[in-house]
Amino acid sequence: MYKELKETCYEANMELPKLGLVLYTFGNVSTVDRSRGIFAIKPSGVPYEKLRVKDIVIVDFDNHIVNGKLRPSSDTKTHAFLYKNWDNIGGICHTHSTYAVAWAQALRDIPNFGTTHADHLTSDIPCAPPMSDDLIVGDYEHNTGMQILDCFRNRNLNPAEVEMILVGSHGPFTWGKDASKAVYNSKVLEELSKMAYLTLQINPEASRLKEALIKKHFERKHGKNAYYGQGC
Amino acid sequence: MYKELKETCYEANMELPKLGLVLYTFGNVSTVDRSRGIFAIKPSGVPYEKLRVKDIVIVDFDNHIVNGKLRPSSDTKTHAFLYKNWDNIGGICHTHSTYAVAWAQALRDIPNFGTTHADHLTSDIPCAPPMSDDLIVGDYEHNTGMQILDCFRNRNLNPAEVEMILVGSHGPFTWGKDASKAVYNSKVLEELSKMAYLTLQINPEASRLKEALIKKHFERKHGKNAYYGQGC
Amino acid sequence: MYKELKETCYEANMELPKLGLVLYTFGNVSTVDRSRGIFAIKPSGVPYEKLRVKDIVIVDFDNHIVNGKLRPSSDTKTHAFLYKNWDNIGGICHTHSTYAVAWAQALRDIPNFGTTHADHLTSDIPCAPPMSDDLIVGDYEHNTGMQILDCFRNRNLNPAEVEMILVGSHGPFTWGKDASKAVYNSKVLEELSKMAYLTLQINPEASRLKEALIKKHFERKHGKNAYYGQGC
Amino acid sequence: MYKELKETCYEANMELPKLGLVLYTFGNVSTVDRSRGIFAIKPSGVPYEKLRVKDIVIVDFDNHIVNGKLRPSSDTKTHAFLYKNWDNIGGICHTHSTYAVAWAQALRDIPNFGTTHADHLTSDIPCAPPMSDDLIVGDYEHNTGMQILDCFRNRNLNPAEVEMILVGSHGPFTWGKDASKAVYNSKVLEELSKMAYLTLQINPEASRLKEALIKKHFERKHGKNAYYGQGC
Repeated sequence: MYKELKETCYEANMELPKLGLVLYTFGNVSTVDRSRGIFAIKPSGVPYEKLRVKDIVIVDFDNHIVNGKLRPSSDTKTHAFLYKNWDNIGGICHTHSTYAVAWAQALRDIPNFGTTHADHLTSDIPCAPPMSDDLIVGDYEHNTGMQILDCFRNRNLNPAEVEMILVGSHGPFTWGKDASKAVYNSKVLEELSKMAYLTLQINPEASRLKEALIKKHFERKHGKNAYYGQGC
Repeated sequence: MYKELKETCYEANMELPKLGLVLYTFGNVSTVDRSRGIFAIKPSGVPYEKLRVKDIVIVDFDNHIVNGKLRPSSDTKTHAFLYKNWDNIGGICHTHSTYAVAWAQALRDIPNFGTTHADHLTSDIPCAPPMSDDLIVGDYEHNTGMQILDCFRNRNLNPAEVEMILVGSHGPFTWGKDASKAVYNSKVLEELSKMAYLTLQINPEASRLKEALIKKHFERKHGKNAYYGQGC
Repeated sequence: MYKELKETCYEANMELPKLGLVLYTFGNVSTVDRSRGIFAIKPSGVPYEKLRVKDIVIVDFDNHIVNGKLRPSSDTKTHAFLYKNWDNIGGICHTHSTYAVAWAQALRDIPNFGTTHADHLTSDIPCAPPMSDDLIVGDYEHNTGMQILDCFRNRNLNPAEVEMILVGSHGPFTWGKDASKAVYNSKVLEELSKMAYLTLQINPEASRLKEALIKKHFERKHGKNAYYGQGC
Repeated sequence: MYKELKETCYEANMELPKLGLVLYTFGNVSTVDRSRGIFAIKPSGVPYEKLRVKDIVIVDFDNHIVNGKLRPSSDTKTHAFLYKNWDNIGGICHTHSTYAVAWAQALRDIPNFGTTHADHLTSDIPCAPPMSDDLIVGDYEHNTGMQILDCFRNRNLNPAEVEMILVGSHGPFTWGKDASKAVYNSKVLEELSKMAYLTLQINPEASRLKEALIKKHFERKHGKNAYYGQGC
């Protein structure tokens, strides 16, 4: 009944150690089934080398466990909040990858410095400010989702176009049309984080990519006139 | 008679090269058996690829060799001193991992910059000052243990909560409930060292994580209200 | 009919992930057959682990597809332009390798800081300025080739001696007598980029290698008095 | 007749790619047989993956080829010069490893910042100045050896105690009692280079390790009162 959903979730999670994005259990991926109003997510604190398909937990958008013997990721409420509020996303990924975390800890947006960045998004990568203390002591993981949503609203960003964010003092969350794309975005974000860090070290006055290049590179890969890839 | 203890020690030591924490023979792990007042430790200067279970040396808390044909690690007295003074630790790990050593050489505490750090400890990671000259020319390895203990006393730190330290100009020591946790802490320390280094490069004015977030993240994983993991 | 050309192109492309020069599909290599006025190039957006010899696309210098069922790399026109204008090059490689991209994003030439650099070229590695907006909205990939050519003309550089360039805000292009040499140059460029970055971090006042050393090292490996290698 | 010498040389050379110290052919190791006044060295420009035992070249101290069908390393005269002048060394290694080259390009000695350094040598790692132009256009590789010797004489360093040097604008040379120790020293030098680089980034005012610690750590591993290792 949940076999396919669990397998998709399992495969996406197992990409994280292969891509060098997680240390020990510091990450989780979920995948949604909107027709049934549920999502599959990694169980909390289970090492990747011991994770099995049947360990994956099925949860609904109100955080009730629908299926599974283990406790779901401690970040489950953040995933649920985002699925509930953003209709178009199919998978979510959270890691503590090194360079992305460094930017989150520095409380800095990642500037759009080059075409590698513009191939994926036109804006800088936003760093949401840390939550107020009452939100932290309250329903923390739910409020983390709210913090992400607020950041996107305040900056007028569209989650269908900007599929990644840094939560300040914490680390990256990414999403996409499915779990595999969410993981892809986490890897791309880590690489963009490293490139931007090095760029600033070489030239502290480095400036953002010019608008014409941003538009050109984003539209080469996205939108109705895209001509990158095989069109499928 | 010492088979199990030696095997545990051997397995923990063999994690170090796999985790990229040691070059050649630059590291050692020990594991204690408190009921017998002994601990097992890596022999001195034996390359990991040649290490065998039977090479592990058994030593008591006064540094007498109880079993084993090889000379124990040159850092054995530091391990013995810590086991003797800290009742609750079950394993100790010492490495010269790159980023942690860099902070130790810089004589800087590692600031608690983010939730990855706060998931493991609430304080900054202390850097004990280098010893006075008379302690260095005296019983050096014993005094290294004393230096660690003094640093924890002076700063009112609890080794059950803060399971890692940098010895200034030298490198990291970590511990935990068992040898495997001590090794885990060495890997986490290396990652926190790298993240903190990058954070400062991106933002030299980066500030410590706010108190509410430190408390929230530490208590998610530790203490009686912890809800991370599977509760076992 | 195109089997050998496709195989050469396939082998050169497959070197990129092995050498750590590409993430996902961020790179492409081509190889030319001047007697027939065609070149073989990677198809657009096809992951390296799924790439097969028969997927390689054959294109002429006016960008017409001569053979192949897939769409060629979106950078094909840049390759075609360079083959058309530079008679002596046999292969071209484009990547988004991390350190080279950082210099491109910083809009800085890579200074000739040492003999590793001088073993390969005497000049600094040029960083071509980003194109004007009208060239970007025009025939972008064709104009990227023109931008490279203009940079070489303006600086009086010879593509037979300087086999690499950074396109500002974008990333590296390299070439050589064949596709294999083009890939070799991409790896060397990435290493030179990292070395130069580290050099500046250690000594922000680091100066270029003295002329006598540049000449000595370049001529050890190149030209009629070269004595490096086995002379074949 | 030269089989054992060639095998020793081959094995030591093959360590370089395994240790991540060489890119392509950027490195070479030699091993000496003093009773016969000859040494074995890597042939010039042969990729490590194609190197065979029989390709190793046997040369005497006056740079005459004694045995072997290939041209010896272009750095052969540097090796010969050092063997001729330093009686006690049994192997020499030259690489272009990334962090060591960065210090050489920055024309900076590597400060003795910590015990990892002091475990191997008491002094800073010297960076010899680049040669004068007439020495460069003259017998360059022979003069590189002379430059190394001069640097040791000027600073009153003993090659039996300091087994490594940076040649300014070029890169590292290391040696030891045999070829295997020379390679070990190249790996240690690369790690010390990285640690020192990071130390300076974290604390630009970082100071040298105190004398008592230098002496203690060096003598733990070296000299008649050494107690590190198994005494063999």
